[in-house]
Amino acid sequence: MKEFELIGKLTRSLPTNDTVVVGAGDDCAVLDFGLPEKLLLFKTDAVVENVHFSGETEPKKIGHKALGRCLSDIAAMAGTPAAALVTIGLPPDYDPDFIARVYEGLNALAKRFGVAVAGGETTASTGGIFISVAMLGTVARGRQVLRNGAKPGDAIFVTGELGGSLLGKHLDFEPRIHEAQWLAEHFSLHAMADLSDGLAGDLRRILAASGTGAELLKSAVPVSRAAKLQARTMPSAKPPFAAALADGEDFELLLTVPGADAVKLLDAWNKKFPKLKLSCIGKITAAAGLRIRDGSGVRPLDAHGYDHFA
Amino acid sequence: MKEFELIGKLTRSLPTNDTVVVGAGDDCAVLDFGLPEKLLLFKTDAVVENVHFSGETEPKKIGHKALGRCLSDIAAMAGTPAAALVTIGLPPDYDPDFIARVYEGLNALAKRFGVAVAGGETTASTGGIFISVAMLGTVARGRQVLRNGAKPGDAIFVTGELGGSLLGKHLDFEPRIHEAQWLAEHFSLHAMADLSDGLAGDLRRILAASGTGAELLKSAVPVSRAAKLQARTMPSAKPPFAAALADGEDFELLLTVPGADAVKLLDAWNKKFPKLKLSCIGKITAAAGLRIRDGSGVRPLDAHGYDHFA
Repeated sequence: MKEFELIGKLTRSLPTNDTVVVGAGDDCAVLDFGLPEKLLLFKTDAVVENVHFSGETEPKKIGHKALGRCLSDIAAMAGTPAAALVTIGLPPDYDPDFIARVYEGLNALAKRFGVAVAGGETTASTGGIFISVAMLGTVARGRQVLRNGAKPGDAIFVTGELGGSLLGKHLDFEPRIHEAQWLAEHFSLHAMADLSDGLAGDLRRILAASGTGAELLKSAVPVSRAAKLQARTMPSAKPPFAAALADGEDFELLLTVPGADAVKLLDAWNKKFPKLKLSCIGKITAAAGLRIRDGSGVRPLDAHGYDHFA
Repeated sequence: MKEFELIGKLTRSLPTNDTVVVGAGDDCAVLDFGLPEKLLLFKTDAVVENVHFSGETEPKKIGHKALGRCLSDIAAMAGTPAAALVTIGLPPDYDPDFIARVYEGLNALAKRFGVAVAGGETTASTGGIFISVAMLGTVARGRQVLRNGAKPGDAIFVTGELGGSLLGKHLDFEPRIHEAQWLAEHFSLHAMADLSDGLAGDLRRILAASGTGAELLKSAVPVSRAAKLQARTMPSAKPPFAAALADGEDFELLLTVPGADAVKLLDAWNKKFPKLKLSCIGKITAAAGLRIRDGSGVRPLDAHGYDHFA
C-alpha cells in the first residue's frame, strides 16, 4: 500500500458531524460553528528535520516555513488567519538557543499577518526536531474557494514563478494571504489551491475534484530563475520546464476564473500587485486529462512524463 | 537551559491578537471569534513512539490515546469537543495496516464523543511514528474553568484513582468530558485541570496560577490498584502513595469548589456517577506551598520529596 492509497483508505470513513462543511481533501477543513457571517478554517501541517529542513538550516527560516505552510493553505481558501498552536518535538540533544531562534522566525511571520500564537507544547522526539503547527482562520461565508469548482472554459492562473524552490524559496516564501483575499473580493474564483506538490500534481487535484481536464500553454508557464539555475549547475536536476511542473514547495496560488474575466483580472492585478507576476497558463477543458500545448502541437502529460517537455 | 525554562522563555513574548482570551499555560487556549454564546477551545497534543507508546502497543490504543489526551484537555475547561485534525509522521518502514488500526481506535473514540475528524496529513518521520492531534471545541461563554481561580477555603477534588497509569490506563483512559460538563453546570468550579503530569505537579500549577497553597489529607488521596500492584511487583517502583502523587497520565479531573459546596457536590456526584469515585483530598490555603497531613502531623511536600510519604 503506497502513501496515497493509505490516505485514501484512512479518509474514506472519518467520523463527521454537522460542523463540517468541507472535510479532508481540500487545503483546509471548513467548519460552521454558527458565526452568522463567517466560516472557520482549520489546518495542521508539520515540518520534520532532514525532510523539510536540515540541521544546517538557519533556524529562523525553519520557524518561518513551519508557520508559512499553514498560512499558504489559509490563503488557498481566500481566508484570514487568526490563531496558531505550535507543537515541537525535541530530540534529547536539542539546543535551546536553536529552538528559541526557530520561534523568532515563526513569531515574526505571525506578527506580520496578525496571527496569535496561543500556545502549544513541547514533547520528546526520538528522531530529529519536528514542528507541527495547527492554524485557525476565518473566511466570509460563501467566499471560501475550494478545489472542486473549475469549469470548462475557465482560465488558469498562477502567481509568481515556479520550480527550483529547494535552492532557497522553500524556506523564505511569502504566503499569498493578501493576494488571495483581494482575488476573492474582486473576482469570481472557481477553484484555488496553493502549490505545495508542484504545478502538475496540484492542478491534477483540482481537475479530479472538479471532473474536468486542462490544457497548459508551455510558453506561458512562468519558469523561475532558480529552476534554470539548478538545471545549469546540477547535473542531475530536471530541465527548467519540468522543474516548473513537478518541483514542490512553490507556495504560489493556482486558480481558475471564467475565461471572460481573464484580461480584466490581469489588468487589475498588474495595477494592484505590480511586483508579483500573475500568469495565465492555460484553460480548463471538458475533456479529462492534463495536456501541454507547444509549437509542435498538443500532447498529454502522463503522471511521470515531464522529461520530454524539457 | 532545562525544558521548562525553554518553555518559559518561548511563551513570554508570543504574538497575540484580540481573539485570545487565554493563551499559553492553561489546558487549552480560549479564543473569542465573536460567537454570541460561546468561546472556542483550541488544543494540540502529540504522542511519539518510544515515548508515549511502543512498537508493541496495540495500535487501536495508540489512536485512542492520541485523541483522548486532547479530549481530556477539553474536559479540563468544561468544554465540548467538536473537530480534530490528525497529523501523522510515518517512518520509511511503516506498516500501513498498523496505521489503519491506529485510526480505527482514534475514530472510535471520536465517534463516541461526537467529534469530527476533519482531515490532517501524513508526513515523513526520520524517527518513529508520531501523531499530533489538533482539537477544536466550544464552551459556554463564562463557563470555562481555568487554573487560576482557586481560593483559600476551597475543597480540592479528584475523580477516579491515581498512580500506576503506565500499567495500562494511559492507553485506554476515559476522557472526563461528560463529568466536567455536569460539574460546571451544577457547581461553581473555581479551578480545574486534567491530571497529565501527576497530582503534585498539576496541583502545583493550579496553586502557582492562583497564588495560593494547599494541604492534602494523605488518607483521602485515592491510590489506584495499579499503583499498589506496581509497588508490590516492581522492585524499582515508587511506593503507592508516592505514585499517586507523582505518576503522570492519570487523565482524571482535579478541581476546586467553595468549601461550603463540598458535601452537596459529593452527594450529587454519587447519584449521578455512581461508578466513578470522586474524592475530596484536601483544601486550598492562603499560605503558599503544598503540604501533606497524616496521622503524625503536617509536613511540606518539596518538589522531589515524595518518598518519605510511602
